[in-house]
Amino acid sequence: MTISVAVSGASGYAGGEVLRLLASHPDVSIGAITAHSNAGARLGSLAPHLHALADRILVDTTVENLSGHDVVFLALPHGASAAIAAQLPADTLVIDAGADHRLEDSTAWEKFYGSAHAGTWPYGLPELPGHRERIRGSKRIAVPGCYPTSSLLALMPGFAANALAPDDVVIVAASGTSGAGKAAKINLIGSEVMGSMSPYGVGGGHRHTPEIEQGLSAASGLDVRVSFTPTLAPMSRGILTTATAKVSAEIAALEDPASALRQIWVEAYEDEPFVHVLPEGQWPSTKSVQGSNYAAMQIAYDAHVNRVIVCCAIDNLTKGTAGGAVQSMNIALGLAETTGLTFQGVAP
Amino acid sequence: MTISVAVSGASGYAGGEVLRLLASHPDVSIGAITAHSNAGARLGSLAPHLHALADRILVDTTVENLSGHDVVFLALPHGASAAIAAQLPADTLVIDAGADHRLEDSTAWEKFYGSAHAGTWPYGLPELPGHRERIRGSKRIAVPGCYPTSSLLALMPGFAANALAPDDVVIVAASGTSGAGKAAKINLIGSEVMGSMSPYGVGGGHRHTPEIEQGLSAASGLDVRVSFTPTLAPMSRGILTTATAKVSAEIAALEDPASALRQIWVEAYEDEPFVHVLPEGQWPSTKSVQGSNYAAMQIAYDAHVNRVIVCCAIDNLTKGTAGGAVQSMNIALGLAETTGLTFQGVAP
Amino acid sequence: MTISVAVSGASGYAGGEVLRLLASHPDVSIGAITAHSNAGARLGSLAPHLHALADRILVDTTVENLSGHDVVFLALPHGASAAIAAQLPADTLVIDAGADHRLEDSTAWEKFYGSAHAGTWPYGLPELPGHRERIRGSKRIAVPGCYPTSSLLALMPGFAANALAPDDVVIVAASGTSGAGKAAKINLIGSEVMGSMSPYGVGGGHRHTPEIEQGLSAASGLDVRVSFTPTLAPMSRGILTTATAKVSAEIAALEDPASALRQIWVEAYEDEPFVHVLPEGQWPSTKSVQGSNYAAMQIAYDAHVNRVIVCCAIDNLTKGTAGGAVQSMNIALGLAETTGLTFQGVAP
Amino acid sequence: MTISVAVSGASGYAGGEVLRLLASHPDVSIGAITAHSNAGARLGSLAPHLHALADRILVDTTVENLSGHDVVFLALPHGASAAIAAQLPADTLVIDAGADHRLEDSTAWEKFYGSAHAGTWPYGLPELPGHRERIRGSKRIAVPGCYPTSSLLALMPGFAANALAPDDVVIVAASGTSGAGKAAKINLIGSEVMGSMSPYGVGGGHRHTPEIEQGLSAASGLDVRVSFTPTLAPMSRGILTTATAKVSAEIAALEDPASALRQIWVEAYEDEPFVHVLPEGQWPSTKSVQGSNYAAMQIAYDAHVNRVIVCCAIDNLTKGTAGGAVQSMNIALGLAETTGLTFQGVAP
Repeated sequence: MTISVAVSGASGYAGGEVLRLLASHPDVSIGAITAHSNAGARLGSLAPHLHALADRILVDTTVENLSGHDVVFLALPHGASAAIAAQLPADTLVIDAGADHRLEDSTAWEKFYGSAHAGTWPYGLPELPGHRERIRGSKRIAVPGCYPTSSLLALMPGFAANALAPDDVVIVAASGTSGAGKAAKINLIGSEVMGSMSPYGVGGGHRHTPEIEQGLSAASGLDVRVSFTPTLAPMSRGILTTATAKVSAEIAALEDPASALRQIWVEAYEDEPFVHVLPEGQWPSTKSVQGSNYAAMQIAYDAHVNRVIVCCAIDNLTKGTAGGAVQSMNIALGLAETTGLTFQGVAP
Repeated sequence: MTISVAVSGASGYAGGEVLRLLASHPDVSIGAITAHSNAGARLGSLAPHLHALADRILVDTTVENLSGHDVVFLALPHGASAAIAAQLPADTLVIDAGADHRLEDSTAWEKFYGSAHAGTWPYGLPELPGHRERIRGSKRIAVPGCYPTSSLLALMPGFAANALAPDDVVIVAASGTSGAGKAAKINLIGSEVMGSMSPYGVGGGHRHTPEIEQGLSAASGLDVRVSFTPTLAPMSRGILTTATAKVSAEIAALEDPASALRQIWVEAYEDEPFVHVLPEGQWPSTKSVQGSNYAAMQIAYDAHVNRVIVCCAIDNLTKGTAGGAVQSMNIALGLAETTGLTFQGVAP
Repeated sequence: MTISVAVSGASGYAGGEVLRLLASHPDVSIGAITAHSNAGARLGSLAPHLHALADRILVDTTVENLSGHDVVFLALPHGASAAIAAQLPADTLVIDAGADHRLEDSTAWEKFYGSAHAGTWPYGLPELPGHRERIRGSKRIAVPGCYPTSSLLALMPGFAANALAPDDVVIVAASGTSGAGKAAKINLIGSEVMGSMSPYGVGGGHRHTPEIEQGLSAASGLDVRVSFTPTLAPMSRGILTTATAKVSAEIAALEDPASALRQIWVEAYEDEPFVHVLPEGQWPSTKSVQGSNYAAMQIAYDAHVNRVIVCCAIDNLTKGTAGGAVQSMNIALGLAETTGLTFQGVAP
Repeated sequence: MTISVAVSGASGYAGGEVLRLLASHPDVSIGAITAHSNAGARLGSLAPHLHALADRILVDTTVENLSGHDVVFLALPHGASAAIAAQLPADTLVIDAGADHRLEDSTAWEKFYGSAHAGTWPYGLPELPGHRERIRGSKRIAVPGCYPTSSLLALMPGFAANALAPDDVVIVAASGTSGAGKAAKINLIGSEVMGSMSPYGVGGGHRHTPEIEQGLSAASGLDVRVSFTPTLAPMSRGILTTATAKVSAEIAALEDPASALRQIWVEAYEDEPFVHVLPEGQWPSTKSVQGSNYAAMQIAYDAHVNRVIVCCAIDNLTKGTAGGAVQSMNIALGLAETTGLTFQGVAP
């Protein structure tokens, strides 16, 4: 069986990464490749790394061009994807890498995005409890944000096990610049970012905050609140998330809280193909997961402050966007979940 | 007046940076330059950026070679500096860039460093309350660690004003690789670190933790406990520290906690030559302080979680080590505090 | 059919890249993974990016451990590979990523390597005239050096067509640091290489010089002499080679030498799966080929100095080492030449 | 004496670097700071590294605002600087960091810049024979381009000594991205440039080519022709130039051409404060000169191809632009040539 797939937003980084992965997917035939201002261009002039597709011509991002495929990937600005999605056939699998359909809470959507809420789709993070089942057979999938992917993977086991306090969660994450998109902005040019770390969206204003809280609250049944600070790191790809929360009194009272916590994380992910708790003593690096759909993490318990600290590394474009999207497509279509995805990072 | 200065550990990054700054210091004459395994080498072969000193020959790090100078900078492994310092004349100004004399608590020293405590010297962070006075005229100065410099500058105003809770402090910092020293280790080679973020010393084990707690506790009179996670960033220099703490009930109850907090930080540093709270809306970057003795910071209040978040950028080798050392030397000797130090970062 | 493969030198970058590629090769089963000082270690502790192989234990690099496989990859220091290879069965396909068997001229070998010549094997650059045929069915293959791969691909068409003068070739190449190996050396640590370009092996001393001259001389039947200068660039992977030669009087006398030259290059590679002359106006970048087996190039004619300038980008570890090795393995074994290799670079 | 200085184009990298240097210049008072589209902005919001000038407000780049100063630095697009300069008083020292007044040959100007030639000013590279004298007392100075600075310093000694052939010069240079300016372009964003090397302006089209040929021809009295290829390196600052030329028959016939060549270079620069031929065996790196006005170089003779190869490292923004400009200002005004300039690079 060959699945025909259309990819919109192909001149951006998310769309380009979807194409990179699909080009090696054995069951997929790439149909329409669409763009907005770059329609008419040769893909090779915009994404020269996609050699096998270099001579393909981008067409306009229209319902007409996207129709007639089994699967449509939307890698568009928020708002734009909802508008297109609403017009695509109900039996087409639509996978939205944008934010439009991630949040369940309309109020949170409106507060952080400033527009009307387009509704909620199954959330494409199959590692969260119950989510794999919701994705299976679904015709609409909302791809999680890159920071939420790493943050939720980092903290979900502890919250699902009721081992963490909900009111004292701090997450600081460092992202490669591709997370900011393929945008011609002075603050993103190489001269500015190379050799420099800088924060942004500090103080709770980043749009991924409610998405993280939504996932952790659902996992725990509690009202989890998160202090989230993203930073821009001098690298193209990758997110390193450092997440910490106070440990419950029950765990803290154990003889060996560190081992108990570790066990919670190890068990949560032991059957997951793309998430791995590293052996003790080994900490993750973003390069080790570069270009792969892998999430690598390690946990520590700091008795002095009664906190668990979890560091999780993903590739923001792969597991954090396009890889997660393909993984969800595989599940939705009943393919083997790992088809077309790699476990090996491109390192060094 | 010309001050004669000896610099030990000149083949390392801290010693090299001390020499870089002293080479432009108008009141200083550089005497002995010492090293351990590199004694006998031409400085230019080890530190080719120090053009004006390129033909100087490194001599052995001995009491004899260091004696006879007005000032001696020690940039040696901990233990080594205490051993040398004990033998230097009492009227020589000895400035130790190492850790030996930073901690007041012998128990903390022994726990984190595993050796006998060598005693406590005035701590060379003049921006902390009362510290400038202790440095003035002192003949012994302990240069703060690089992470403590940025962490203490970030959080001191809030603790000094009793505006923050002592039991819920989280600090995540990203450092350039020079912070790990000029060491031939596989995990530090460029192929490994370029394009990669990774954590280390997670879970409270980093030796700078007790130093941060010591400073914040002294500023507040409380038993401040810190969850500190350092990460290695793909850049040579710079530290970006993200520090957060819960805000006191008094502040939180105000109509505008954000402004009240901001006012505390602005007032704390308004007379400081090397610390600046940026205008609202502007966040610091490590590149903006590269090679300078400047600390740039910004604060935000997140009402949703009742936390202050402070981001502080310094150059780990300059304000974080050698610049702070020269600043303290200037104070100790009665020179203008800013002599020989620059306010401008080398950017882009 | 499943081919059993052993990989030696797995803790180095070349060996690690061979494993990364083989892990996705559909026809291969990875047998022994060997190392020298790292024997006994878990692969995941040395090469954490190879997630699927993380729990494999490295064994000693011995003839015994390497025997019994259909294919053996040697990624060892020169000298070591020849010693091992001499003891492996004649019907095992041995692919040497080291230098031992690349040069035909024993005198050049001895001059540049200072040891006895181990003999010459078929040279694994199938894009050179006649080489694909020599590789097919061979049981011994010498993998070209990374600089020679990009330099020979850049200039071969012009020399094979007798369009270039043999006595005026200049090649300047910039390599990522992985080309210098996974070695704990001060000059390779991130603090030294990030933000810095530096040359090495200047003046004809680099060992890849005779290898480049050998290939160009064979292609042209002339005594080609090359001025070759390698430089180290602040990136982990990739080689950008800038190669230039004077153009023959015949070509220079044409009405449109630029088009004539372009035609020579385009025709030389039109049937090659892994080499592409980019459309006019587009220049290659190393990132566009990162992690792929692709070589991207562009040519220009400078009438003012009557020179052709060719810029060729490869990934030094993939097409420049492990990818070329796997490509040659596929040819030698009669598999489709592109099996297990990707055309897409990991970008941005 | 305090010299009043105005700086135009202050929101760009060249203008910002002029300000960075002038802020530490003991004899200078910084007057008007001008910009075009950024007029009205606070300097600190555009150039946050210039802490001491952060609160200065940019004014419009007009003749009126620039008038009334002893010195005016122009860091403007070509064309714009000539237009302004023509209206500034004859007794104001005008230093143009742009290209308008560098070339002597109007035909070359028109070919490469496509506009009318504005005339030729004394060329601000005092290390070229006779140039320091022309700068002294001049009221108009054309600052050399960054590539010409490194290329001319690299090859001038050989051409001035008639030791090199004029028809076979090849220069390949790698520049940091700041050389491309502070421009919001997709090809300059960090995600694109980090981890990547790429060429541009290949085939003789780069505008710095005639400027290099002009300088070398003047030094030798010959018609020197240069093949020049610039490349973009993944770093913010620095140029590494690799320049090579065939050696004259006279030199080649000597018993030790390498020593003879070395002697030529050493003697040419032995009295120069900012140019240094490194000790034998040591090669330059761009980081060793970062932020300094230093040029570091090394030469080699390759007998096999009878070529000299010179590698020269400068900081493109300092010696390559703003530092050279300040050096020329010092000479023109009769100050000590090194005033306000540093010999030490900011490394690592």
